[in-house]
Amino acid sequence: MIAGIIGATGYAGAELARLLSAHPQISGLSLSSVSYEGQKIDSVYPNFAGRISSVLVKPEETIAGSDIVFSALPHGAGEPYAKACIDKDIHFIDLSADFRFGEDEETFKAWYGIAYAHPELRKRSVYGLPELNRKKINELKSTGAVIIANPGCYPTGASLGVFPALANLIASGGTIIVDSATGISGGGREPQRSFHFPECSDSVNPYKTGAHRHGPEISRNFRFMSETAVPGTSSAPNVIFSPHLAPMNRGILSTIYIPLASGWHVHGHDTSAPRPPDKEINLMADKIRKSYSDFYKNEPFVRILPEGCFAATGRVRQSNYCDISIHLDCSGKTLIVISAIDNMMKGAAGQAVQNMNILIGCDETAGLETIPSLF
Amino acid sequence: MIAGIIGATGYAGAELARLLSAHPQISGLSLSSVSYEGQKIDSVYPNFAGRISSVLVKPEETIAGSDIVFSALPHGAGEPYAKACIDKDIHFIDLSADFRFGEDEETFKAWYGIAYAHPELRKRSVYGLPELNRKKINELKSTGAVIIANPGCYPTGASLGVFPALANLIASGGTIIVDSATGISGGGREPQRSFHFPECSDSVNPYKTGAHRHGPEISRNFRFMSETAVPGTSSAPNVIFSPHLAPMNRGILSTIYIPLASGWHVHGHDTSAPRPPDKEINLMADKIRKSYSDFYKNEPFVRILPEGCFAATGRVRQSNYCDISIHLDCSGKTLIVISAIDNMMKGAAGQAVQNMNILIGCDETAGLETIPSLF
Amino acid sequence: MIAGIIGATGYAGAELARLLSAHPQISGLSLSSVSYEGQKIDSVYPNFAGRISSVLVKPEETIAGSDIVFSALPHGAGEPYAKACIDKDIHFIDLSADFRFGEDEETFKAWYGIAYAHPELRKRSVYGLPELNRKKINELKSTGAVIIANPGCYPTGASLGVFPALANLIASGGTIIVDSATGISGGGREPQRSFHFPECSDSVNPYKTGAHRHGPEISRNFRFMSETAVPGTSSAPNVIFSPHLAPMNRGILSTIYIPLASGWHVHGHDTSAPRPPDKEINLMADKIRKSYSDFYKNEPFVRILPEGCFAATGRVRQSNYCDISIHLDCSGKTLIVISAIDNMMKGAAGQAVQNMNILIGCDETAGLETIPSLF
Amino acid sequence: MIAGIIGATGYAGAELARLLSAHPQISGLSLSSVSYEGQKIDSVYPNFAGRISSVLVKPEETIAGSDIVFSALPHGAGEPYAKACIDKDIHFIDLSADFRFGEDEETFKAWYGIAYAHPELRKRSVYGLPELNRKKINELKSTGAVIIANPGCYPTGASLGVFPALANLIASGGTIIVDSATGISGGGREPQRSFHFPECSDSVNPYKTGAHRHGPEISRNFRFMSETAVPGTSSAPNVIFSPHLAPMNRGILSTIYIPLASGWHVHGHDTSAPRPPDKEINLMADKIRKSYSDFYKNEPFVRILPEGCFAATGRVRQSNYCDISIHLDCSGKTLIVISAIDNMMKGAAGQAVQNMNILIGCDETAGLETIPSLF
Repeated sequence: MIAGIIGATGYAGAELARLLSAHPQISGLSLSSVSYEGQKIDSVYPNFAGRISSVLVKPEETIAGSDIVFSALPHGAGEPYAKACIDKDIHFIDLSADFRFGEDEETFKAWYGIAYAHPELRKRSVYGLPELNRKKINELKSTGAVIIANPGCYPTGASLGVFPALANLIASGGTIIVDSATGISGGGREPQRSFHFPECSDSVNPYKTGAHRHGPEISRNFRFMSETAVPGTSSAPNVIFSPHLAPMNRGILSTIYIPLASGWHVHGHDTSAPRPPDKEINLMADKIRKSYSDFYKNEPFVRILPEGCFAATGRVRQSNYCDISIHLDCSGKTLIVISAIDNMMKGAAGQAVQNMNILIGCDETAGLETIPSLF
Repeated sequence: MIAGIIGATGYAGAELARLLSAHPQISGLSLSSVSYEGQKIDSVYPNFAGRISSVLVKPEETIAGSDIVFSALPHGAGEPYAKACIDKDIHFIDLSADFRFGEDEETFKAWYGIAYAHPELRKRSVYGLPELNRKKINELKSTGAVIIANPGCYPTGASLGVFPALANLIASGGTIIVDSATGISGGGREPQRSFHFPECSDSVNPYKTGAHRHGPEISRNFRFMSETAVPGTSSAPNVIFSPHLAPMNRGILSTIYIPLASGWHVHGHDTSAPRPPDKEINLMADKIRKSYSDFYKNEPFVRILPEGCFAATGRVRQSNYCDISIHLDCSGKTLIVISAIDNMMKGAAGQAVQNMNILIGCDETAGLETIPSLF
Repeated sequence: MIAGIIGATGYAGAELARLLSAHPQISGLSLSSVSYEGQKIDSVYPNFAGRISSVLVKPEETIAGSDIVFSALPHGAGEPYAKACIDKDIHFIDLSADFRFGEDEETFKAWYGIAYAHPELRKRSVYGLPELNRKKINELKSTGAVIIANPGCYPTGASLGVFPALANLIASGGTIIVDSATGISGGGREPQRSFHFPECSDSVNPYKTGAHRHGPEISRNFRFMSETAVPGTSSAPNVIFSPHLAPMNRGILSTIYIPLASGWHVHGHDTSAPRPPDKEINLMADKIRKSYSDFYKNEPFVRILPEGCFAATGRVRQSNYCDISIHLDCSGKTLIVISAIDNMMKGAAGQAVQNMNILIGCDETAGLETIPSLF
Repeated sequence: MIAGIIGATGYAGAELARLLSAHPQISGLSLSSVSYEGQKIDSVYPNFAGRISSVLVKPEETIAGSDIVFSALPHGAGEPYAKACIDKDIHFIDLSADFRFGEDEETFKAWYGIAYAHPELRKRSVYGLPELNRKKINELKSTGAVIIANPGCYPTGASLGVFPALANLIASGGTIIVDSATGISGGGREPQRSFHFPECSDSVNPYKTGAHRHGPEISRNFRFMSETAVPGTSSAPNVIFSPHLAPMNRGILSTIYIPLASGWHVHGHDTSAPRPPDKEINLMADKIRKSYSDFYKNEPFVRILPEGCFAATGRVRQSNYCDISIHLDCSGKTLIVISAIDNMMKGAAGQAVQNMNILIGCDETAGLETIPSLF
């Protein structure tokens, strides 16, 4: 089948082209770009020389010639193309935020400052985090073409790190703090001062602390998982989300602080005079680790690390994995989960391909078999 | 006067040598090293060529020839030298953890696995965080030679970021989370796999999550500040501390989550449906920022950043500053403070010089005037 | 077939394991390690979790159970295993320098300080640079098991950048200068001060200037190519080789200065008052570029870049490509060729797999299809 | 005295402000900027908070209020201000290329595409490489206000690395190759794709190979030195110059290949079968090293490294030093000199301050005492 990519010259679009050109079910690509129309993709990305050299065409042409369409356009720019695809009855996988909030246009508007052009399209859209919504995706596709709202990069790592704690009532109802660091590719391909080498190299730079628009997306995911775990519950955990730029190309590390439900406390640890973790702490960590492993036992892209191992972005590099490590604060009252993804893979293009695999009914790992590179 | 440095060939010792050689009150250096005894310091550090080229001598010789002594030895190795200095009535500034816990040998032993060799020396020692203990340092020195326990790198940034919130009762009594990232120089000069370039470059690597020995030091500092603020209080805030290695040479960024006391809450912000920060959030952030500025108004090395500015390690590079930025989570219930220091300066050697300045009674900024380098 | 890797826990060995585990002709791996015998490879490399988890065995066991054997041992350590393999009539692909100098034991000894244990094995060995010796490899394998001397990382990039200039007599007989920068992974997995993050990050560090042992290997390759181009010629070009460590994980960039044979000079450019390149300079560069393209027209892993494009390590990252760009100094008398490879791929493990593909007679690109990653 | 900086918000201008604010002879700064006029410098550079907070004014105002003026404007933009300063009889130190070619407008025009606005100003200008022209600067200033053409960053490191070889006739008349790598700050403060973190991190990127406009400046410097060494000589060495971007913030490393004059050859080393450097090679290297040391014996900012030591950018970081190491190719016919500078210091702002020190007659190291930072 032919896959189309609208917005193929941004980082996520180009990464998609790279992945799809090696995908066993994809026989051809149609790439479109507004800025580079008429040029060849390998003149924009010399990395692709000899391998991907399609001429970049108009979005309309891509839609006309494709069996499935990906959009990596800026937020707010892709709705007309989503509509065109649904009208033509082909799946549309959107890497922007346009469909992530579903029918909650109000929250989307509040954070993105854009109104829905075609609100009715949300009836055909589903939030494409397979570990949460695989069943929903399959149900929706059984009734026609689907719009996949590919999740944000931060929400992917944060959600996968917290879901089992919510589903298994390990988390208390309190505030969950997500502290994340991203590689600079997360800022996209357009040069800006924040991503200018001398401004971000050899420094850790926080931004939009406590006020980033991935916060409400994370919050929404947590609520859905809570409601799934305890139907009828009205209590979503609060979320505090704080992102940082780290001087690396790829990857998102999220360190997540989850207050434990009282049943999971380790007692007798005086928090005002903390001591190194003892056997009881380690046993409880193990129990939680096991609970996480069980939760994800059928998931091909989630790895729960063994005791003593720490999730790190360098260990999922270039792959679609989400690594998760489980730690207990030495007070015995707070779970610390660390999740690591490659922001361009599980955080963007890789997850989009995973969603495509679900939609077209092939093995979910097709085209995503890369073992994390060593460095 | 002559300054002695024991352990001069580690990173902190060498940074000290570099700072002291440009210090207006220091006319000469005596450097000692066990591993490199008999060699010249600039054969170990070619950076120093033509500027610092002392032959490295034995610690005893350094003590004999110095008016003040710094020790940058591993934990547990410096006590005999501290004793020798006190016996000789000269000040001893220790960059190890040996004296940081004062008379609480139990906590020190629990985390460092070492017993005190000379417990009685704690009567002459003081925890050398000038912003907390300047007065104590001055009082103690009025009665004779002093041992300064130079604070840990993480505890310095964490404590400075939290003190005003404790002192002004902005913090509730709940758990304070300190999430920190350090440059790799924090691991010292000895090659290890964790600090081997391909293992840590282009990756963020957490370690000792929730179980690092700087946790109890931070906790202790918070308790002291709480007790100072509300004499007789028994409630120290709980602390969760989680460190990471970031792929940069220098710097520590701490992102600190502080639950607000109810009087400082911004009301009417539904945390289950977060919205971008509004005027009320910004006003409260401003009020807290002002409170921080007042608290530190006489401190030469603490800078409270204006609204819209984020503390970043790249902006304090090579300097003794601690930059602090103030943010309010969009829920209005949690204060997020970000502090940035250069781990080798305010986090180690710079602070040691600042302590020396207090001890010898010169301007506290002498030898520490460097404006942060741009990159 | 089963592939064995001796020395599987070094960087090159592990990269080999990663490549071979995805190779269509390889059904299983046998991994050996002296240091980690009995452990699982994914406890050494958590990146491999869930994908490669063989228990590390003894070399003898690996040889007994494999159809083809790779050795990534230190120089001098692999000869006994090479012998065992040849005796057993299976191919042995050696990533060390032991067989690179063939029967010239004297040069090998001079630079590596090791004598040959089994000199007679050189009758069965061939220098495995496919672009130079594909035919020789095929001839030798037709007579039995073969030892492949997998080339050094620097010599691979340098040789591919110079071969067409020698073959087509574009180069004069003068001195060719190869100035190279490598990523730190080139130094291997064992921590050393030179590769300690704070010592090599944010710095370019030269080493073994004009005296690196890859110099004679490069020199030898140039001589072979000259002799092939002009049978009977006695004039090998002189080589000066100078390596540097650059603060990056992977990649080797070689900037190569080749004096042009007089027939290729652009005349009338006063070198004492240089001017920006004009049309004549660009035309000659184009002519040389075309000559390079023709030379490599059937090579799957060499890409000659178009005018205006510069070879860069970031553009071959994670791939087996050697990118080559052609430039003419504005004096019109010197060709400057830039070649870029990924030191772990075309510079080590990738090239070893390419050699295996030739030996087993499958498509030379099998298992090596990765398109260079964008970052 | 008051120092003025025109173009104070670019990297070189800001670095100048940082240096001058700590200079013992400078009592105040007047900073101008077109883009940020009316703003405070520390709102542009938060690093300066609490230390440098001048409001940015118009260039005319800066000139009116200053005793000496620095210009860090783009090439071609500063001539009117140079004229204004000369008319007002105050020194003008120009960091652009406008005055570097002196009366050779033709070469300047060929490479920069700009004509001289006030050709006559070249009578008052001098190329400000103190190690070459200290005497000329002093002579010119004795006759009135002077325009200093502060050298380019690459030409500074290249020239200092080659001068003694020319002056002492160590170099043959052949082609000298300068292969350089710069930190990304060399590209200035304006975001561009080439300096966008994901495009240049973890990669070495060559550019303008053999055709960079610092080539003719280097060539010119070599010619002047040759003419000084052998008055009346017409033979300037040819120069090939090839720059690279390395993934680091600061520094320029130049590896320079200098064919030895026959009197300096080490004989009997067969270049077609190179051997590791022997005693004779090392002796000759030593002799050349000594010759370099003698040449620079009175220079405060040039350090000739001892045998076994390699110049590296990380060892001059933040300082005004030029480190030079001397190596002999194992063929014994080519000298390889490596020079390292901090591109913002000796390569730009530091050298400008050094020139100011000469002009105002104070110690040449005033304000430039920084010992290279360790990392």
